[in-house]
Amino acid sequence: MGTLVLLRHGQSVWNAENLFTGWVDVALSAIGEDEARRGGELLVEKGLLPDVVHTSLLRRAIATANLALDAADRHWIPVHRDWRLNERHYGALQGKDKKATLAEYGEEQFMLWRRSFDVPPPPIDAADEFSQDGDPRYADLGDAMPRSECLADVVARFLPYWEEAIVPDLRAGKTVLVTAHGNSLRALVKHLDGMSDDDVVGLNIPTGIPLRYDLDGDLRPTNPGGTYLDPVAAAAAIAAVANQGR
Amino acid sequence: MGTLVLLRHGQSVWNAENLFTGWVDVALSAIGEDEARRGGELLVEKGLLPDVVHTSLLRRAIATANLALDAADRHWIPVHRDWRLNERHYGALQGKDKKATLAEYGEEQFMLWRRSFDVPPPPIDAADEFSQDGDPRYADLGDAMPRSECLADVVARFLPYWEEAIVPDLRAGKTVLVTAHGNSLRALVKHLDGMSDDDVVGLNIPTGIPLRYDLDGDLRPTNPGGTYLDPVAAAAAIAAVANQGR
Repeated sequence: MGTLVLLRHGQSVWNAENLFTGWVDVALSAIGEDEARRGGELLVEKGLLPDVVHTSLLRRAIATANLALDAADRHWIPVHRDWRLNERHYGALQGKDKKATLAEYGEEQFMLWRRSFDVPPPPIDAADEFSQDGDPRYADLGDAMPRSECLADVVARFLPYWEEAIVPDLRAGKTVLVTAHGNSLRALVKHLDGMSDDDVVGLNIPTGIPLRYDLDGDLRPTNPGGTYLDPVAAAAAIAAVANQGR
Repeated sequence: MGTLVLLRHGQSVWNAENLFTGWVDVALSAIGEDEARRGGELLVEKGLLPDVVHTSLLRRAIATANLALDAADRHWIPVHRDWRLNERHYGALQGKDKKATLAEYGEEQFMLWRRSFDVPPPPIDAADEFSQDGDPRYADLGDAMPRSECLADVVARFLPYWEEAIVPDLRAGKTVLVTAHGNSLRALVKHLDGMSDDDVVGLNIPTGIPLRYDLDGDLRPTNPGGTYLDPVAAAAAIAAVANQGR
């Protein structure tokens, strides 16, 4: 069985501005680009060189993969990109300021939208400037394109990709890098570690620090919770993410 | 039938230093990165948005594809990378200064190695610092890994990839971007335009300017020679390439 390595994209321009992003395709900030390169250096330092990479269709994950792999001299490996690795669709909250949203709707509603398992934000309108209607990369989805998602929705659309595209690479003995987003990676970790719907609510995955999972023949982690390649930086980053939006 | 777009990578660090590069995996220079972005802008200006991209395994072509596609907002399309799109292997000349090589071996030998169809440079030694022995990206090649190539060798290893990987995309009606190198693209243009072994000797393809081919049902160009998306810049660049090494 191969080895799985998860990498959450680094800071984006909208992360820096504290806006809800979701499927809006914003670029990495200069800090985020540095995080991606550091992630690639960690892969080299730990001797964990990917044979194949899977990313979302969003440029902050694609650029993270490109920069990390270039830093690791693995820019030439096969790449697969799929919408099912996208960040959670944030619905009508996309483009909105997190602090202003907290002030407008209050702590309880804000945390429900951000962290509950099964409460999606209000759906985005097709005419909203931050809607993905008409975006050619989602043309094949048709009416199945989400207008808002809760984490349960992300799990539901992610798991078929896991089974169809990622598991075969692992069964072939490959080291598989998945470069994605806070919530698509939470969906994966929930599945791997068998977390309950309640427990996943408290899970934060830091940006830019590769997280290694060693899997047995039943695709269960032999290192539950995974192993961060830089555990000290990961612990500090997890605390920082928990305070986001305050 | 789909549309074919060829894009030769922009200036690399070694192009700037006038060294023979071949399979040595050097990065783009800052000028080369700008050329790649400009290539992507030309795709947008001409409404020629790729559905799929094919690149070599060398970072100067991979980075050119990444930068051009990001500039064209097509960073999310499927990508295929294959050694058969690599630059010609320059054998024992890899890493050598072009001007010094011209002085050492004389005009006739120099031009035979640079531009003849069927005279490869001397083979590179496995112990040479610029050999690709042990490079994991070529591990599957085994003894088939070239130690030097003439253009005829490039044609021979490129054509199977053309038939197996690129033609199916074209037959599916896609706009196909091929981001590669001076000699792998010369091999392709020779094939498309039915050029003789002698005529291809005089062919130079400028860097960073997309070259469009419209193909009929027999995969023959309806615009022989192709159409550069910036013809004025292409004419100037072709003249500059012809004087390279002087």
